[in-house]
Amino acid sequence: MSAFAFELEREVGSARAARFHTPHGVVETPAFMAVGTLATVKSLDPRDLREIGAQMILSNAYHLHLRPGDELIRDFGGLHRFMQWDGPILTDSGGFQVFSLESLRTVSEEGVEFRSHLDGSTHVFTPESVMEIERNLGADVIMQFDHVIPGQSEESVARDASERSLRWLARCVAAIDKLEAPTPQALFPIVQGGIHASLRREAARAIRESGSWPGFGIGGLSVGEAKPDMYRILEVVDAELPRDRPRYLMGVGFPEDLVEGVLRGVDLFDCVAPTRMGRNGAVFTNDGRLNIKRAEFRTDQRPLDDECDCAACTRFSRGYLRHLFVADEMLGLRLLSLHNVHFLVRLMRSARSAIQDGTIDAWSRDWLARYHSRKVPTA
Amino acid sequence: MSAFAFELEREVGSARAARFHTPHGVVETPAFMAVGTLATVKSLDPRDLREIGAQMILSNAYHLHLRPGDELIRDFGGLHRFMQWDGPILTDSGGFQVFSLESLRTVSEEGVEFRSHLDGSTHVFTPESVMEIERNLGADVIMQFDHVIPGQSEESVARDASERSLRWLARCVAAIDKLEAPTPQALFPIVQGGIHASLRREAARAIRESGSWPGFGIGGLSVGEAKPDMYRILEVVDAELPRDRPRYLMGVGFPEDLVEGVLRGVDLFDCVAPTRMGRNGAVFTNDGRLNIKRAEFRTDQRPLDDECDCAACTRFSRGYLRHLFVADEMLGLRLLSLHNVHFLVRLMRSARSAIQDGTIDAWSRDWLARYHSRKVPTA
Repeated sequence: MSAFAFELEREVGSARAARFHTPHGVVETPAFMAVGTLATVKSLDPRDLREIGAQMILSNAYHLHLRPGDELIRDFGGLHRFMQWDGPILTDSGGFQVFSLESLRTVSEEGVEFRSHLDGSTHVFTPESVMEIERNLGADVIMQFDHVIPGQSEESVARDASERSLRWLARCVAAIDKLEAPTPQALFPIVQGGIHASLRREAARAIRESGSWPGFGIGGLSVGEAKPDMYRILEVVDAELPRDRPRYLMGVGFPEDLVEGVLRGVDLFDCVAPTRMGRNGAVFTNDGRLNIKRAEFRTDQRPLDDECDCAACTRFSRGYLRHLFVADEMLGLRLLSLHNVHFLVRLMRSARSAIQDGTIDAWSRDWLARYHSRKVPTA
Repeated sequence: MSAFAFELEREVGSARAARFHTPHGVVETPAFMAVGTLATVKSLDPRDLREIGAQMILSNAYHLHLRPGDELIRDFGGLHRFMQWDGPILTDSGGFQVFSLESLRTVSEEGVEFRSHLDGSTHVFTPESVMEIERNLGADVIMQFDHVIPGQSEESVARDASERSLRWLARCVAAIDKLEAPTPQALFPIVQGGIHASLRREAARAIRESGSWPGFGIGGLSVGEAKPDMYRILEVVDAELPRDRPRYLMGVGFPEDLVEGVLRGVDLFDCVAPTRMGRNGAVFTNDGRLNIKRAEFRTDQRPLDDECDCAACTRFSRGYLRHLFVADEMLGLRLLSLHNVHFLVRLMRSARSAIQDGTIDAWSRDWLARYHSRKVPTA
């Protein structure tokens, strides 16, 4: 069995329950990956993540290259050891970040020259340099360097970026083969193509035909397009990708999008939303989102979510958590981040059970109806 | 046995090992109390405190009265339940805080009128109102409302404040007796008198003669006076207070002061130093203080303190912790706060063992010599 075997357990329509093997353990999918941008999932301890039941996390090549430096992390024994997370890690390639820099970057066939958002220093990312960075970091899954475009880009722009991403993918493969790795790493190509079904189809086919990949990224979604466009594109890609490999929908992490993604054959998700929103006082519940800073929670002795068994909900009241936010106390940010990450991890665990039971259709219909009813006071 | 029995186990000179009983459990003394100003020890979870071995914590009547309000906390079942700390708690009376407001307060025999540092609203603290606040909060040990003066005050000012504190003590007793309490609370008087030995002696005697107290606070030290003055005054007070009751040295929490205090008969300490310094990157070690932000720690793979068994030192390198600080990541503040509180808790545990073994003199001499040698790079 390959170091990155993907054991399909059950399929119901496009939804799949599986076990994705990595050198740092198994990920039971569908799964949500918390984002540890700078080698830490903001405000959380790796032990918190374990307790929550998180199995795989994500970190960012762009950010770690700038700070503290991927070579430093290599010298510390790699990202797992540096940040003391011994489970599977995925690193993105920095494509999304450098293309977001807009006025600070110049794109050529060779790669992207950009200025650091921290100190304005000049850097160049090429498929070759990014592979070196991701090898230094030592994650289990590494993403190709790709050309990322805005969500609403017209077809000619999307085609150009998608074709360049394919050429860069070939360069990534050639580059990574030359680098020594202490443990095996799985390189995932990324299917781009904006909201244009034909481009997505072409990209998926071209990638499929270019090699035998351990898994696939689906990029360029949840970047400003309408939700129906995202769901439609997921269906197009689902039909084109091999069913016996994991699919990772990049940067998507709102609860409803996770459920819709699972129904369309997605196995892995990531997003900063649960931690970023947690730091802003926003809380996921099965009845929609609430904002803990609202005055009505001042005297509320109930937990954030009375169906939740996280370390925030089993101990603290909404009134106490609101107090922590009003008083700018760090414990509040941490407890809400913990709850939100736990919420998504548990949501995917529930979806997985429903697939295994064959009840995913009814489960997702009920879950979405209740979530959209938004019975709790929103932000 | 009283709810607040103080079981002396061994005395060596003035130093004492004892067990202080409270309605929420036993405190093995000497002990350091972490400070949870706003019903949270900044950046730490109550579970962190348990894991560290903290037995008793402190919280502030002034801050909690303003935010979220002591009546709200009473309605949540008291401070223990509100903040989910089921061990002993001590609340200070707000004397230190309101007298620190300087231009924002007016003192009379009745009490202190002051303006909130948060919104400028006017409040009055009297011995009676403070007892009501402390009863609402429901801590195990509550401090009397006292008149606090700057550390270098001249004798007439110190005498006036000390005598007023005595009159206020009598009013505190009368007030607390009228209030219902769900669980017993121990009212500690506070010995004031600045750096004037005769005033301290008079205050200690007057307090002793005015009742049978479950314990004693020693206030007005570590507020700007020279260290030898503090140690001298501790010796004066030590000689005057009954030996069969706990003594709490208020607001003192640097490691060397804890050791010097233990040698002078102090049982309980508190200070914001370990958490405040931790948030600034300063770290206690047995070889003195270091600042994690220094460039030389960038590549340092050693723990903060290789003799320490806290959750920071057993897992993370100096290089990683420095990265967290440079990147403004909250986990760094938390891990350093955790380490520093653990350091003081463990320091008092070691002192306690040395008293029980009869080796406190040699132990403290060695410990102080090593700490003052400051072999680590300082801030």
